[in-house]
Amino acid sequence: MVSNFVQEQLQEFRERNQDRGRLIIKCPDQPGIVSTVTAFLKEYDANIVELSQYSMNPEGGTFFTRIEFDCPGLNDKAADMQLAFQEVSTVFSMQWTFNHVSDLKRTAIFVSKEPHCLLELLWEWQSGDLLADIALVISNHEDTREIVESMGIPFYYIPANKDIRKEVETKQLGLLEEFKVDLIVLARYMQILTPDFVAAHPNRIINIHHSFLPAFIGARPYERAYDRGVKLIGATSHYVTNDLDEGPIIEQDIERVDHRDSAGDMKKIGRSAERRVLARAVKWHLEDRVIVHENKTVVF
Amino acid sequence: MVSNFVQEQLQEFRERNQDRGRLIIKCPDQPGIVSTVTAFLKEYDANIVELSQYSMNPEGGTFFTRIEFDCPGLNDKAADMQLAFQEVSTVFSMQWTFNHVSDLKRTAIFVSKEPHCLLELLWEWQSGDLLADIALVISNHEDTREIVESMGIPFYYIPANKDIRKEVETKQLGLLEEFKVDLIVLARYMQILTPDFVAAHPNRIINIHHSFLPAFIGARPYERAYDRGVKLIGATSHYVTNDLDEGPIIEQDIERVDHRDSAGDMKKIGRSAERRVLARAVKWHLEDRVIVHENKTVVF
Amino acid sequence: MVSNFVQEQLQEFRERNQDRGRLIIKCPDQPGIVSTVTAFLKEYDANIVELSQYSMNPEGGTFFTRIEFDCPGLNDKAADMQLAFQEVSTVFSMQWTFNHVSDLKRTAIFVSKEPHCLLELLWEWQSGDLLADIALVISNHEDTREIVESMGIPFYYIPANKDIRKEVETKQLGLLEEFKVDLIVLARYMQILTPDFVAAHPNRIINIHHSFLPAFIGARPYERAYDRGVKLIGATSHYVTNDLDEGPIIEQDIERVDHRDSAGDMKKIGRSAERRVLARAVKWHLEDRVIVHENKTVVF
Amino acid sequence: MVSNFVQEQLQEFRERNQDRGRLIIKCPDQPGIVSTVTAFLKEYDANIVELSQYSMNPEGGTFFTRIEFDCPGLNDKAADMQLAFQEVSTVFSMQWTFNHVSDLKRTAIFVSKEPHCLLELLWEWQSGDLLADIALVISNHEDTREIVESMGIPFYYIPANKDIRKEVETKQLGLLEEFKVDLIVLARYMQILTPDFVAAHPNRIINIHHSFLPAFIGARPYERAYDRGVKLIGATSHYVTNDLDEGPIIEQDIERVDHRDSAGDMKKIGRSAERRVLARAVKWHLEDRVIVHENKTVVF
Repeated sequence: MVSNFVQEQLQEFRERNQDRGRLIIKCPDQPGIVSTVTAFLKEYDANIVELSQYSMNPEGGTFFTRIEFDCPGLNDKAADMQLAFQEVSTVFSMQWTFNHVSDLKRTAIFVSKEPHCLLELLWEWQSGDLLADIALVISNHEDTREIVESMGIPFYYIPANKDIRKEVETKQLGLLEEFKVDLIVLARYMQILTPDFVAAHPNRIINIHHSFLPAFIGARPYERAYDRGVKLIGATSHYVTNDLDEGPIIEQDIERVDHRDSAGDMKKIGRSAERRVLARAVKWHLEDRVIVHENKTVVF
Repeated sequence: MVSNFVQEQLQEFRERNQDRGRLIIKCPDQPGIVSTVTAFLKEYDANIVELSQYSMNPEGGTFFTRIEFDCPGLNDKAADMQLAFQEVSTVFSMQWTFNHVSDLKRTAIFVSKEPHCLLELLWEWQSGDLLADIALVISNHEDTREIVESMGIPFYYIPANKDIRKEVETKQLGLLEEFKVDLIVLARYMQILTPDFVAAHPNRIINIHHSFLPAFIGARPYERAYDRGVKLIGATSHYVTNDLDEGPIIEQDIERVDHRDSAGDMKKIGRSAERRVLARAVKWHLEDRVIVHENKTVVF
Repeated sequence: MVSNFVQEQLQEFRERNQDRGRLIIKCPDQPGIVSTVTAFLKEYDANIVELSQYSMNPEGGTFFTRIEFDCPGLNDKAADMQLAFQEVSTVFSMQWTFNHVSDLKRTAIFVSKEPHCLLELLWEWQSGDLLADIALVISNHEDTREIVESMGIPFYYIPANKDIRKEVETKQLGLLEEFKVDLIVLARYMQILTPDFVAAHPNRIINIHHSFLPAFIGARPYERAYDRGVKLIGATSHYVTNDLDEGPIIEQDIERVDHRDSAGDMKKIGRSAERRVLARAVKWHLEDRVIVHENKTVVF
Repeated sequence: MVSNFVQEQLQEFRERNQDRGRLIIKCPDQPGIVSTVTAFLKEYDANIVELSQYSMNPEGGTFFTRIEFDCPGLNDKAADMQLAFQEVSTVFSMQWTFNHVSDLKRTAIFVSKEPHCLLELLWEWQSGDLLADIALVISNHEDTREIVESMGIPFYYIPANKDIRKEVETKQLGLLEEFKVDLIVLARYMQILTPDFVAAHPNRIINIHHSFLPAFIGARPYERAYDRGVKLIGATSHYVTNDLDEGPIIEQDIERVDHRDSAGDMKKIGRSAERRVLARAVKWHLEDRVIVHENKTVVF
C-alpha cells in the first residue's frame, strides 16, 4: 500500500538524521555573532554541514543565519543545548529556533475544488521528495477525498462560505490543534481566512497565488492577464498575512504564453507554475530555509 | 571602419533578398481567405517560404496571417501586385501591408542617459543580427554621442524637459521626416511623448519598460520591486499608446533575484532583461512578425 | 469516481470538436501547394482555424504544413474528402494524414518502477489537459497497478528481462493490437525494444530520456552529470528508433543544479524536467503538431 | 571620455570598499573550523557581511567557505592578519586566499575575430557592473582594436597559428607579466593553449565554450547541434585545463531553438547565451565566489 511505503521512507529518513540539527537565527547585526554561535556548537562536538549567513545593511542592520550540523547524541544533548543557547541568545537579542531534522513538520493541506496543487504535494511526498508528516487534508469540497484517503491521510470535509466563516474556522482550528499541526499549506483553498486564524499561525501559513504578484492582485488573475495581453504568466507562493496577497513572498516563477492562448489555456498552463512554485516554497519551509523579516523573506 | 563593415553586410542581405516579399493581413474571419490569397500569390509565381495563420474566436472572429514568399522579379512585379491585391483586399475588408524584405526599415533610436539598451541594439546591428537601417539617434543627453558617431550614425542632441515638450517634439518630428523614419525605438528614453507625437506613429513606437507589466506601472519599478520583496524582476517591450505603460505588449522576460540584491543590484540585473526583451521586440517588428489587434499583439 | 469524470470531459470534448479536422502534409517543395490545398478545403466549406507552414531550404527543399479547420458535417464528408484528396496528394507526391480531432488517439503507457512520468500523464489526463484515450498501462513491475486501476485504466503486468525479450514483446504486441493502440509512451520504461517492435510503430513510440541529449547518452546520466560537475541537467523526449537515444528529438528542457546537489539530488530534481518534457511532447503528438523529417522534427 | 568615466567609478568602488576583505578556504573537514576562523576575525574587529559554507560528504570530506567581512583599518592590519592566519591554516591544512575587495583583479582578455563576448565584457565593465581592472586585450586579429582602444584599453595584436604557438605564447606571457595579470579570459579565442601556458595560470584562465558541455565537445558545435535536431542550445564557461573542454565548469545556460533555425541561426542565437554565461562566470570569479575542487567548482 502506498502509505506504508511512504512511512517506511520517512522512518528511514528520521533514523538517518537523528543526530542532525538546525539553528536558525535573526538578530541585530554586530561583530562576533558567528564566532560565538559556532564556538557554542563546537563545545557540543557539533560539525557544521552547511552554514549560510547574510547581513542586511551591514552597519546597524540585521543578521540572519541558518546552520545545519551533525551532533553525535543530539537527542540526549538537545535539552541542555537549548537551555544553554538561551543565554547566548539573550546577549545578542536573538530570535532563534533549534530544530531536529528528524522531527518532520506536521502539515495540514487546505484545498477547494481544483486538485493540482494538492496532487503535486502528495506526489512529491509519496516519492520521498517532500519530507513532511502530512497530518490531514481539510477541504470545503468532497472532490479530493478519494485520492487523499487512498494514501492513508485523514480527510475532513468542512463546507465553507463567508456567512459561516467563524464556525468553520473553529472546526478547523480544533483539528489543527488535535493533529498538532506545525504548517498549513493553502493548496488553492479559495476561502479567505480571518485575522484571528492568521494571527494564530504567524509565518506558518503558505499560500499559492495564481499570478506573478503584485500583478493581478485579487480575483480572476488569468482572465485579467489575458485581457492585458501579457506574454508571461506567473505564480507566487507567500506567507499569509492579514493583507490579502501582500504577505512575504517565498518564491515566484513564470510560464510563457502567446496569442493563441485563451484565458482558459492560461489557466491550464498556469497550473504548471503554481504546482512548481508551491512545492518549492513548501520544501524550503520544511528545510527551515526561509526567514521572514518585515515583509520579505531571506531564503538560504 | 565599423560602419563600412555593417553597410557591406546589409547590402549583401538586400541583394540576397531582392525577390523576397511579405504580406501581412488582418480581417474579419470567413472561409476562403487563405485559398484566395495563396492563389493570388501563385499567379505571380511566388513560392511561399513561411506562412503563419491564426483565427481568433473562429466564428465571427478575426483572421491574421503573415506570408513570406520568394517571387522571381519581385521588383518589377511589385507595383502590379499591390494594385491587384487592392481588389482582393476589398472583398475581405482586409488591413494589409506588402513589404519587400530588402527594404530595411529606417529606424530612429531615442535614448537618455542610460546606454545599455541603445548599446545592445547597436551591437546586434553591428553583428548583422538586427536587420535595420539605423537612420539616427536622438538623445536629451550627450553621453552616447561618441559611441554612436563612431559607428557612422548621425547623433542629435535635443535637450528636453516637460516645459519645452512641444518645441522639442517639433524638432524631433522634423528629423524623423527628414530621415524618412519607419520605426522609433525608445531605448530607455525618459521623456513622455505627447498624444500628437504618438498619433503620428501608430504602432511604430516601441518602448522598453523596466518592469514585468502590469506590475509596477509607473516610476521607480526596481525600488518598488525591492520593497515588495519579489523573487523575479522583469522587463516589458510594448508599442506606445497614449495610456502610459498600457500599450500592446510585444515581449516580456524576467531575471531571478534574491534577498541579497538591493534595489541597486536589481537595477543592474534588470538591465540584462531589458536589453534582451527590447532587442527581441525590435527584431520581430523588423521582420513584420507583430500584428496589433485591439490592445494585444499576435506575434508570428 | 475519477474515471467517470474524465470520461465525461473527454466525451464533451469529442462533441465540441466533431466538425474539426486536421490535415498534416509533407512533400517536396514547389509553388502552389498551399493554394491548392486551401482551395480544396474551401470546396468543402471548411474554415481554417490555424495554419502553420514551413519550407526547409526553399529551393528544391521540403514543404511541411499543418492545417486545423472547422468543416460543418465533417463526419459525413470525411470519406469523400479523403478520397478526393488522394488525387491532389499524388500530384505533389505528398505524405499526408487526415485526422478528426474528435478521434482521440488510443494510447498505451509503458512504465517500470519509477512512477513520476506515468503519474504526470495520468494527472494531466485526469485534469482534462491531455486529450488522449488512455487504453492501457503495461509494466514489468506491479508497483503502479493500484493507482492505474483506481483511475479505471486496465493494467497489465508483464515481467521482462533481456533473456525473454521476444516472448515479452509478443505479449505486448498482442495487447497493443487488441486495444487498437495508436501511440506508445515509454514513461521511464527501462527495457530495450527490439528492431521488430520499433519497426511496427514508426514515429509512434515516444520515449523520455533522463539527460539533455546528446550529453550523457546511455546509462546512468545523472551519475555522470554529477561526476562532470554540470550546472544544468536536462531531459529529452524523442521518437524511438533502432539507434538507442538517437531518435528524432521532440522536446528538451533543463533544471538548474549546484555544488550542493549529489547525484541522488540531481535524480530528484531531474524528475521535474522529465515529467514536464514528456507531457509536452505527448501533448504535441496528440495534437498532430509533430512532423518527423529524416532524424529531426518540425513542431508546429 | 568613456575610460575616464569608468576609472572614476572604479576608484569610487575602491574607496568604498577599502575596509572590506574576503577569506576563501578549502581544507579537510573537521569540527571547529568555522568557530576558529570566525573567532580569528573577531579578534581583528571584523564584522562578517556574508558567509557561505559547504561541506562535501560530511564525514572525512572537504570543507569550503567564503567569508566577506568589514574590518576597520584593513589596510594597516592586513599584513599582520595574514601572518597570523598562516598559523591557523597550518592546524587545519587549509588552502586559503585573503583578498582586499578594493584590489581589483588585473584582467587580460583574449579574443579572435568574433567580438560578441569581448563586447559584453567591455560593456558590463563600462556600466560599472564588472569590477575588474581590464589591463589589456590580446588578439590574433586586428578587428576589435578600434573599439578596445576607444575605451582606453591597450590592444596587442599577436598573429597566431599552430606552427608558431611557442613563439606566440612567449610574447603573450611577457605581456601578462608586464601587466601583472591575475585573470585571463578567453572571450572566443580560437587558439589552443599549450600545457606550459595553462600550468602557469592554474584556475586563472576562464573560457567560454559554445555548447552545453559535455554535448558537442570539440569543434563546430552549432553545426552538430543542428544536425542532431536539438531543441535547446547552450554555452559553458569553465576553467581551462590541459584536457580540452574538460575543465571545471563554472556556469552554463541555454537558449531555445526550433525547426526554423539553421545552423547559422543557432550560431546567432547562441551568442546571447555565450555572452551571458561568460559574463556571469567572470563576475563570480572576480568576487571570489568560485572554488575549484578536483574537476568541479563550488560557487558561493
